[in-house]
Amino acid sequence: MSKANHVLAPQLIAPIAAEGVTYHAPGEFPDAATAESIGFFVPGYIEHPNPDWMSSLPHLQVVQLLTIGYDYAIDHVPPGVTLCNAAGVHEQSTAELTVGAVIARWRGIDRAAREMITGTWNHQRGRSLQEARIVVIGAGGVGRRIADSFAPFGCTVTLVGRTPRSGVSGTEELPSLLPRADVVVLAVPLTEETLGMVNDAFLSQLADGALLVNVARGSVVVTSDLLQHLGRIEAVLDVTDPEPLPSDHPLWNSPHVLITPHVGGDTDAFPRLARQLVAQQIDRWRSGQPLSNVIVAA
Amino acid sequence: MSKANHVLAPQLIAPIAAEGVTYHAPGEFPDAATAESIGFFVPGYIEHPNPDWMSSLPHLQVVQLLTIGYDYAIDHVPPGVTLCNAAGVHEQSTAELTVGAVIARWRGIDRAAREMITGTWNHQRGRSLQEARIVVIGAGGVGRRIADSFAPFGCTVTLVGRTPRSGVSGTEELPSLLPRADVVVLAVPLTEETLGMVNDAFLSQLADGALLVNVARGSVVVTSDLLQHLGRIEAVLDVTDPEPLPSDHPLWNSPHVLITPHVGGDTDAFPRLARQLVAQQIDRWRSGQPLSNVIVAA
Repeated sequence: MSKANHVLAPQLIAPIAAEGVTYHAPGEFPDAATAESIGFFVPGYIEHPNPDWMSSLPHLQVVQLLTIGYDYAIDHVPPGVTLCNAAGVHEQSTAELTVGAVIARWRGIDRAAREMITGTWNHQRGRSLQEARIVVIGAGGVGRRIADSFAPFGCTVTLVGRTPRSGVSGTEELPSLLPRADVVVLAVPLTEETLGMVNDAFLSQLADGALLVNVARGSVVVTSDLLQHLGRIEAVLDVTDPEPLPSDHPLWNSPHVLITPHVGGDTDAFPRLARQLVAQQIDRWRSGQPLSNVIVAA
Repeated sequence: MSKANHVLAPQLIAPIAAEGVTYHAPGEFPDAATAESIGFFVPGYIEHPNPDWMSSLPHLQVVQLLTIGYDYAIDHVPPGVTLCNAAGVHEQSTAELTVGAVIARWRGIDRAAREMITGTWNHQRGRSLQEARIVVIGAGGVGRRIADSFAPFGCTVTLVGRTPRSGVSGTEELPSLLPRADVVVLAVPLTEETLGMVNDAFLSQLADGALLVNVARGSVVVTSDLLQHLGRIEAVLDVTDPEPLPSDHPLWNSPHVLITPHVGGDTDAFPRLARQLVAQQIDRWRSGQPLSNVIVAA
């Protein structure tokens, strides 16, 4: 192997089926000789991302993220380095959580879980997905998988993306889609365009009783505006702004919201799929084949 | 209309698109003249079933239940009366609850709902449906719909029925299926055969960490035996024995169980689909066509 043919990857996804991998624990940057040898870097996951390490790896060629979102990493990419995301690893886990959380909210599973504490059997009629109108904003891999996962339940699903194409409505159709939606799912990347997109003007277009689901990034939604609309509408939030949500935040107390602690992509399928992806990418890189999931080309 | 061409149906599903329907409120049996005129009776739903009224309707021809299960009604059917169930009305609602509750349990949605009370952001890795092995016991309409609803999530679903046929394994395969199942869903009718079917011997065959889901009837499971196995296995119970579960019952306190208060079939889709079914059946009955969903023929 050439000098900078080594890989630096988080312990979290060990073992990877490849030679020459050094595993890093949270906060433990390797010694200078190892740093010199690293050409391929996999930053840590949710709790321990360390994209700033990129600038301390002098012969870096590829950064392979373990997330689909790359907002936290893109500003750290040195010139000449390729950035890849983890498309394919998280989509189904996120789609499962989305479907499960909507059903949980509509069938009172969250209320039932709380009423178990007092031993209360409180039968209430729920709401079915049959004939529900679901709008998924974000037509990337996550959004498409979410749409596919709702379809078998007899819902009408509309996928919305920046540019209209076959099977995808453009964002300019939102003013006619939002007032008729029973569920609006946010599955967009965090960009300048989507930061704060779900503000008072957006929320005012939702019908009474509509359910807003955020499995994207917390700051896509203006939290203070959402708090004004909760009650008239409901929400399921897997991501929040701020995140983690401080224990005294008013969102926790609303009976009209279900909050899950950013578990969208994180299941037992994650390490398995992440290991597979990283091993394939290392193989492509070493054999000079084109990488998958390229966000920024060298 | 002939003398006994009238219909007695619960207020709950009013209005039905048919002539000559008298609606009954819970506990309000009609006057003698009306009772004389009733040929078609729809008993009340979950909280207010009144199958005993059958014997006080002298010219009764048809009993149309609002449930798929008929264990509570079958012993009350007078000779010469046809009993029909509500197949088609509840299947999808029950399948939605099943999928939602399994995801809720595996992704910690129930725990997250409880931790909202104290404002606790407690990220934990969940379990994905990808590659999960799911065994659905009961190959009727509910079981089939449950199996279909899990399939898009990349699970392996095995449907088990009394008699093996295409796509259905026989109950004699349970000893080889149960030890390898990640999820076992009970979707059987309550019969002499299924009463107490899930006892210590059955539960002992489940692997550590397996999830038992009961959306059938509470007494299919021997509650005291289940309590012995909880911890080694987990459970989602939409039905219990006894039901409703008394507030001091030990099941409420287990961290290894999620209890929902028999909401499987009860969604906003129920009155709509129930009205459609009952109107169609009244029409068939009055025009002398064969009834659907016949459980006991006249």
